[in-house]
Amino acid sequence: MTKLDLAIRGGTVVTASDTFRADVGVRDGRIVAVAAEIEGATREIDASGLLVLPGGIDSHVHIAQPSGPDVVMADDFASATAAAAAGGNTCIMPFALQQRGTSLRRCVEDYVRQAEGECHIDVSIHLIISDPTPEVLGQELPALLKAGYTSFKVFMTYDDLVLNDRQLLEVFEVARRERALVMVHAEGYDAIKYMTDRLERAGQTSPFFHATSRPELVEREAAHRAISHAELIDVPIMIVHVSGREAMEQIRWAQRRGLKVYAETCPQYLTLTADDLQGLNMEGAKYVCSPPPRDAASQAAIWEGLQQGVFQTFSSDHCPFRYESSEGKLTPKARTSFRWVPNGIPGIETRLPILFSEGVSAGRISLNRFVELTSTNHAKMYGLYPRKGSIGVGFDADITLWDPHRRETIRQENLHHGSDYTPWEGFEVTGWPVMTIARGEIVARDGMIVGNKGAGRILERDISAYA
Amino acid sequence: MTKLDLAIRGGTVVTASDTFRADVGVRDGRIVAVAAEIEGATREIDASGLLVLPGGIDSHVHIAQPSGPDVVMADDFASATAAAAAGGNTCIMPFALQQRGTSLRRCVEDYVRQAEGECHIDVSIHLIISDPTPEVLGQELPALLKAGYTSFKVFMTYDDLVLNDRQLLEVFEVARRERALVMVHAEGYDAIKYMTDRLERAGQTSPFFHATSRPELVEREAAHRAISHAELIDVPIMIVHVSGREAMEQIRWAQRRGLKVYAETCPQYLTLTADDLQGLNMEGAKYVCSPPPRDAASQAAIWEGLQQGVFQTFSSDHCPFRYESSEGKLTPKARTSFRWVPNGIPGIETRLPILFSEGVSAGRISLNRFVELTSTNHAKMYGLYPRKGSIGVGFDADITLWDPHRRETIRQENLHHGSDYTPWEGFEVTGWPVMTIARGEIVARDGMIVGNKGAGRILERDISAYA
Amino acid sequence: MTKLDLAIRGGTVVTASDTFRADVGVRDGRIVAVAAEIEGATREIDASGLLVLPGGIDSHVHIAQPSGPDVVMADDFASATAAAAAGGNTCIMPFALQQRGTSLRRCVEDYVRQAEGECHIDVSIHLIISDPTPEVLGQELPALLKAGYTSFKVFMTYDDLVLNDRQLLEVFEVARRERALVMVHAEGYDAIKYMTDRLERAGQTSPFFHATSRPELVEREAAHRAISHAELIDVPIMIVHVSGREAMEQIRWAQRRGLKVYAETCPQYLTLTADDLQGLNMEGAKYVCSPPPRDAASQAAIWEGLQQGVFQTFSSDHCPFRYESSEGKLTPKARTSFRWVPNGIPGIETRLPILFSEGVSAGRISLNRFVELTSTNHAKMYGLYPRKGSIGVGFDADITLWDPHRRETIRQENLHHGSDYTPWEGFEVTGWPVMTIARGEIVARDGMIVGNKGAGRILERDISAYA
Amino acid sequence: MTKLDLAIRGGTVVTASDTFRADVGVRDGRIVAVAAEIEGATREIDASGLLVLPGGIDSHVHIAQPSGPDVVMADDFASATAAAAAGGNTCIMPFALQQRGTSLRRCVEDYVRQAEGECHIDVSIHLIISDPTPEVLGQELPALLKAGYTSFKVFMTYDDLVLNDRQLLEVFEVARRERALVMVHAEGYDAIKYMTDRLERAGQTSPFFHATSRPELVEREAAHRAISHAELIDVPIMIVHVSGREAMEQIRWAQRRGLKVYAETCPQYLTLTADDLQGLNMEGAKYVCSPPPRDAASQAAIWEGLQQGVFQTFSSDHCPFRYESSEGKLTPKARTSFRWVPNGIPGIETRLPILFSEGVSAGRISLNRFVELTSTNHAKMYGLYPRKGSIGVGFDADITLWDPHRRETIRQENLHHGSDYTPWEGFEVTGWPVMTIARGEIVARDGMIVGNKGAGRILERDISAYA
Repeated sequence: MTKLDLAIRGGTVVTASDTFRADVGVRDGRIVAVAAEIEGATREIDASGLLVLPGGIDSHVHIAQPSGPDVVMADDFASATAAAAAGGNTCIMPFALQQRGTSLRRCVEDYVRQAEGECHIDVSIHLIISDPTPEVLGQELPALLKAGYTSFKVFMTYDDLVLNDRQLLEVFEVARRERALVMVHAEGYDAIKYMTDRLERAGQTSPFFHATSRPELVEREAAHRAISHAELIDVPIMIVHVSGREAMEQIRWAQRRGLKVYAETCPQYLTLTADDLQGLNMEGAKYVCSPPPRDAASQAAIWEGLQQGVFQTFSSDHCPFRYESSEGKLTPKARTSFRWVPNGIPGIETRLPILFSEGVSAGRISLNRFVELTSTNHAKMYGLYPRKGSIGVGFDADITLWDPHRRETIRQENLHHGSDYTPWEGFEVTGWPVMTIARGEIVARDGMIVGNKGAGRILERDISAYA
Repeated sequence: MTKLDLAIRGGTVVTASDTFRADVGVRDGRIVAVAAEIEGATREIDASGLLVLPGGIDSHVHIAQPSGPDVVMADDFASATAAAAAGGNTCIMPFALQQRGTSLRRCVEDYVRQAEGECHIDVSIHLIISDPTPEVLGQELPALLKAGYTSFKVFMTYDDLVLNDRQLLEVFEVARRERALVMVHAEGYDAIKYMTDRLERAGQTSPFFHATSRPELVEREAAHRAISHAELIDVPIMIVHVSGREAMEQIRWAQRRGLKVYAETCPQYLTLTADDLQGLNMEGAKYVCSPPPRDAASQAAIWEGLQQGVFQTFSSDHCPFRYESSEGKLTPKARTSFRWVPNGIPGIETRLPILFSEGVSAGRISLNRFVELTSTNHAKMYGLYPRKGSIGVGFDADITLWDPHRRETIRQENLHHGSDYTPWEGFEVTGWPVMTIARGEIVARDGMIVGNKGAGRILERDISAYA
Repeated sequence: MTKLDLAIRGGTVVTASDTFRADVGVRDGRIVAVAAEIEGATREIDASGLLVLPGGIDSHVHIAQPSGPDVVMADDFASATAAAAAGGNTCIMPFALQQRGTSLRRCVEDYVRQAEGECHIDVSIHLIISDPTPEVLGQELPALLKAGYTSFKVFMTYDDLVLNDRQLLEVFEVARRERALVMVHAEGYDAIKYMTDRLERAGQTSPFFHATSRPELVEREAAHRAISHAELIDVPIMIVHVSGREAMEQIRWAQRRGLKVYAETCPQYLTLTADDLQGLNMEGAKYVCSPPPRDAASQAAIWEGLQQGVFQTFSSDHCPFRYESSEGKLTPKARTSFRWVPNGIPGIETRLPILFSEGVSAGRISLNRFVELTSTNHAKMYGLYPRKGSIGVGFDADITLWDPHRRETIRQENLHHGSDYTPWEGFEVTGWPVMTIARGEIVARDGMIVGNKGAGRILERDISAYA
Repeated sequence: MTKLDLAIRGGTVVTASDTFRADVGVRDGRIVAVAAEIEGATREIDASGLLVLPGGIDSHVHIAQPSGPDVVMADDFASATAAAAAGGNTCIMPFALQQRGTSLRRCVEDYVRQAEGECHIDVSIHLIISDPTPEVLGQELPALLKAGYTSFKVFMTYDDLVLNDRQLLEVFEVARRERALVMVHAEGYDAIKYMTDRLERAGQTSPFFHATSRPELVEREAAHRAISHAELIDVPIMIVHVSGREAMEQIRWAQRRGLKVYAETCPQYLTLTADDLQGLNMEGAKYVCSPPPRDAASQAAIWEGLQQGVFQTFSSDHCPFRYESSEGKLTPKARTSFRWVPNGIPGIETRLPILFSEGVSAGRISLNRFVELTSTNHAKMYGLYPRKGSIGVGFDADITLWDPHRRETIRQENLHHGSDYTPWEGFEVTGWPVMTIARGEIVARDGMIVGNKGAGRILERDISAYA
């Protein structure tokens, strides 16, 4: 056996099902041994007292995405991957967004070009279909799916993105034929528009009314509609960023009926509420995302879904804008109505500590379930398994060393993302990523980025294990 | 006490809650006495051995309604009201359909004009809104609601009628403000179109594929969508012609949550199945209606809904076309694809015997529940109560004498509707209406029309008791 | 037509389904006419502005029932029927309790003897089976059922009454064969004993802990058990005095499955909570009944069940003890532990005003539903229909005139029952019975008893309409 | 690193979450390395083309257990552990049964004595409590729990074993205090006795009526009762050998409410039906076990529960009797009535192939779920984790090499258990255990026992990970 490049020694390895003390040996960026004692590696890292986790995979992030006129997303690939790495992640999955009237293929090429040479960790790209023309459905999409872009997202709301039910069905049909996984943003367009118009007519335009304009039942209705149309086509779907009980119960109902309906939730639905949008002046804009955070009962429902297996993945839905910026949350139009406040909050760097602290440290979920929700299932869901998603022989050496006892307070000043605030300012957590190793190289240590931009690759993917 | 015009003697009076032996006395078209013995009336009818029921009210019928180019409905007001009377009904409620681009008010005026002087029994008119312009929503509709047209129907499918969700919401808003009752045809337009296109591409164009093109989940999805939007607006709705378990369960779920969601079903969903559309040549076209009949399990589900109170009304959804006619079921286009077969079946004359026989005689529902489902709840639901819907002092003397033991076989040759067939040809029933009395006058006796055209009035209505 | 004895004129007649203005004519204690105008009766009562309701039937009351050593029930037949009449009732149904080791037949004979000549209104007697010996099951019970005692109650708790599951099954078998209706007190004996022992060991002996000792799940478990055993035998059952959501949901689940499972609830579960047992000293003993009142959420659940048809009857479960009495709530033993506090509260006189006020006046249920829940369904459920339970020709002239607008405050000083307190002291209601007419004779007027003891009969009953 | 004792090379390692190619290195009976290549071990096993699974753990088997007068169980420890090993298992968990009137401690000591020196693989012992005296609950049981007997079973049926609800509660209380896991046999004693008596009176005594005597609702009722009492005490329970939808739905309902209610099912409920008890003469006796197999719909329900996570473990409930034996299925009394047929079927050797074939090969469950259901969760549930239950560093080298493609037909002639028949005679499977390695030593190879009696140890256990 030739010499190992790296041995991580003395830690506790955690997978989605198991927990045991072991050393981990790495060669050529891959895990080649998990053993009681691994000696003689070129380099050793002491993981005593630490958890040795598969690196976090964040399968739902938005980076450098077109966001309408005069609005600019706060992260490019360099800053987003740095922030992700600092937060314990070794792979992220942003979206190449097709703008209406443009070629999907071209959008992807442009997006890949932006990413190349800029990433601290591996990146793999989903598609967003906003214009399912015959050309897109018949040629571009199938070709891209075959080329390893095996998942794409569709929207049931937003002026520039919304698909109607007929388009949804046609897209689902392609997904079924090509075995792609469709991610669905489930909120009902018409109801939101109606509510928004009504609120504006009533002069209720502050950021808080963003939450009022898209109540839980609007998400529930869209979830039911997506499920029904997927059932008609017999295609699996992943309903992303589920915010509360209403949509969750629809998904559970579908799962009980044996439908392949999967679901994701995010830190905002565990820790924030609509009250956070109540801030003075425009402060509430910092928390404007869709679906909006709900209330304490919804948080309890989301925990229930995490505990009982309704949710397969826990992502950030990182969608960063600067707050103090006329190209961010505070555009001139945003000041006139919540309708124009860019939707999205930053979270790529804080996802793992929040779930660990509120979930594992607080006794709500097991360590193994944490690993499953933050890494393993993302890899399986989106065709990166068994390259990524666990600590085992042959997997990429994507490893996060985690101190389960370290107490930290989340502060914007310590974060690496491009946004100028975090919704979790002052949030206290127990448990913290102390080192992030990507394909065998340390990329972050103790909140410092130590790797080089460009080390991350852009990955093709296989068919989803859930498709 | 001045002399009574009529006494119905010796029968068993049945209301939605009670059953007892009594004579019924009538003066000036109204019931003025229910008593142990009523003597000395100008005219006496011997009801010994018979049930004395409130006349059937059929709150869902289509008469002389525009049905697309080259298609003509088989009934005008005269034939429809005659058929209804022969079938034990004393009041029917057809729809004044707004055609797109036209004034709702004008449509109503035209429709009323067609009805005047033609009706054997009382008629009250719902509206159908297909073009909810600001003019219609802001002025015409409110004015009509105030004028006693207190209910209207909206469609979630059909090219010329479908409203999108935004329109649905706006219509619901008016209904809430004016306390109108909205009837909803719940089937999803896009899914049906998608399925229809797919079936046609596959050459599956015979009438049978009408059923395939609109499976239960399409109805379920639309029911859920209608419920959700009604919940958003906080307005009661009536989901009409529910066909099977999937939609029924959504309605039950809504009712359990305390929502004012009401529902109707029809004879076709108790007695027919999709297999009836399998007929040779175009025979299946005789059974083409929407939603289509389903299967035996769905029939069981509909009975469950009738027994357990999910349904408030049982109507015919009478929508008559001639079969052997190039303006009916067999238009040249209909022969090319189920897509063009006129949707609807005749049933105004057979509704009551079918439910009585399969329900009461077969031991599935009580006599009182029969009265509630076929008369009382229609009157309460649509603002005709306490003028109609029961046997009690002050009610119109709308009375059907029913022989619970009489066995009959349904035959087209005995029916009075304008269609040239009945879907229930040869269907055997136990229980039969032997005399229909409308506002104190006999209008039908033993299958013969004995009243005069023009005796029926066109009724304004109050606010629904359910709104 | 011979002269009428009585005409009730100008009121609004209400049945379980209908509401209309009419006069009511009475001869020989029966209703013989309901008509627009009834003139020339020997006696007239002006009911202008009043509701003319079928007299209340209280199918669940305990009178002069053996209650263990040294405890005496506070009502005999005279006081109980007087109180019932003052409260708007025209019929009550107490229980002849079989004491273990005694003949059921003998118990009934003794009980009837106590009643004879003592009743202000009609009485019909259920049985309680505590000792289902072969003699009782094989001979006495069938004979009594044939003699018109067509319903009986069994207990799943209480030392002297509890039946085990085997006994339950054997009793159900007889009920099925004889078409009797079984009433079930559903609380789990073993769990209550266990909890009671544990609480006493912990020194938690005040009346409040009565509620702790029998939590909702103990009722739920017993309800499920009763339902399961009834399903095994295929016999209808009536689960009495349901207190909250847990048991209610079991019953709803059974009903949805098509089982003949019926349910009753009582005023205490709509208006009292466990907190009422918190009173200083022994004050809480005034509210000790089983199942105990729960909390506000349970009250909401009970309303839900009343509105949605889960419950068929609303009774008082009147079970009166004096508070300031060493033979009542304050026996020497009762002072040592809640275990010995006699279970039961008085309510025969206040049931109707409470439901009317909180239900009808508060807009939660319709007037017709009120009549159904308090009169019609009791008569149908227990075989008194169509003699009692509605305003119609041939029914006993059991009529309560009700002022829907009258505001009253419930005060012990105005009540007629034998207890020395009411749990609703100071409770304000809108709606009040102003006259009670039993078989055509006024028995109470404005809170004064005007009839004679002995006017009430002891009624045999037919088979339940629900069996 | 000192030389390894054994390397298993070239196989595909499967855990409850992961699947990857790796060699496995063993020293001193434990796994010390999982690596890409392990060379230089003392002994090598070629696992090319095979799955390397954690050895099966069967947490529900009956061995040499007292079974009533004149009946003898067909397996002792030697034969049972040999059969288990041949079937791919490396650990089994039988029950030390307390007979009424005897000391629990004594029973355990006797049982351990029988096992010592007789076992081919490791054994760990549950208790059965049939006589929860104060002595047992207060002293013996707590002492045994502390000594590593951390789980015990209670019965809700069987003359000699049944606990009443009070006893159940007291046992649960001890379990809660000591953090033991209680296994519950949930069938209702009284209902079964009642049905048995009734069937016998009707002359329905053949083995088939065993199934009739304990219908699904009897299991459902007991499951609900056990859940309710566990909820009262707030103690986790494991409901064993669930047979169909009714009980399964109760468990799912409890889990949704967040209760710690776990469940097990067995091969008989996936593959047999009540019809198998229909055999001529006494053939049906071969399939008599409790709960009995149900029907095809129940099998579908059980698969649903396995797929959706309702069940945590899949065990055999091995309970072996000889068929052709007057001390087995055919005692003289058994020939007179199903009541006396010994309850139980053999299955220790066939459990894994049946689930693999019907589950994994048939595409119903994943390989990882198979491992979870047959090994990992057993270890976690009963306190053997992380000593057993996975392939990872530090675990016992309990490994089964599995050929996923091998087709075999189950034949009694090839089995090692003490019974003279198998219920699965002729059952064809795809997937077969080709080698069983227990703590690093081969104990079975290709259906031959190659290890020595006495190699197996008797294991103490920790607290359940689920308690």
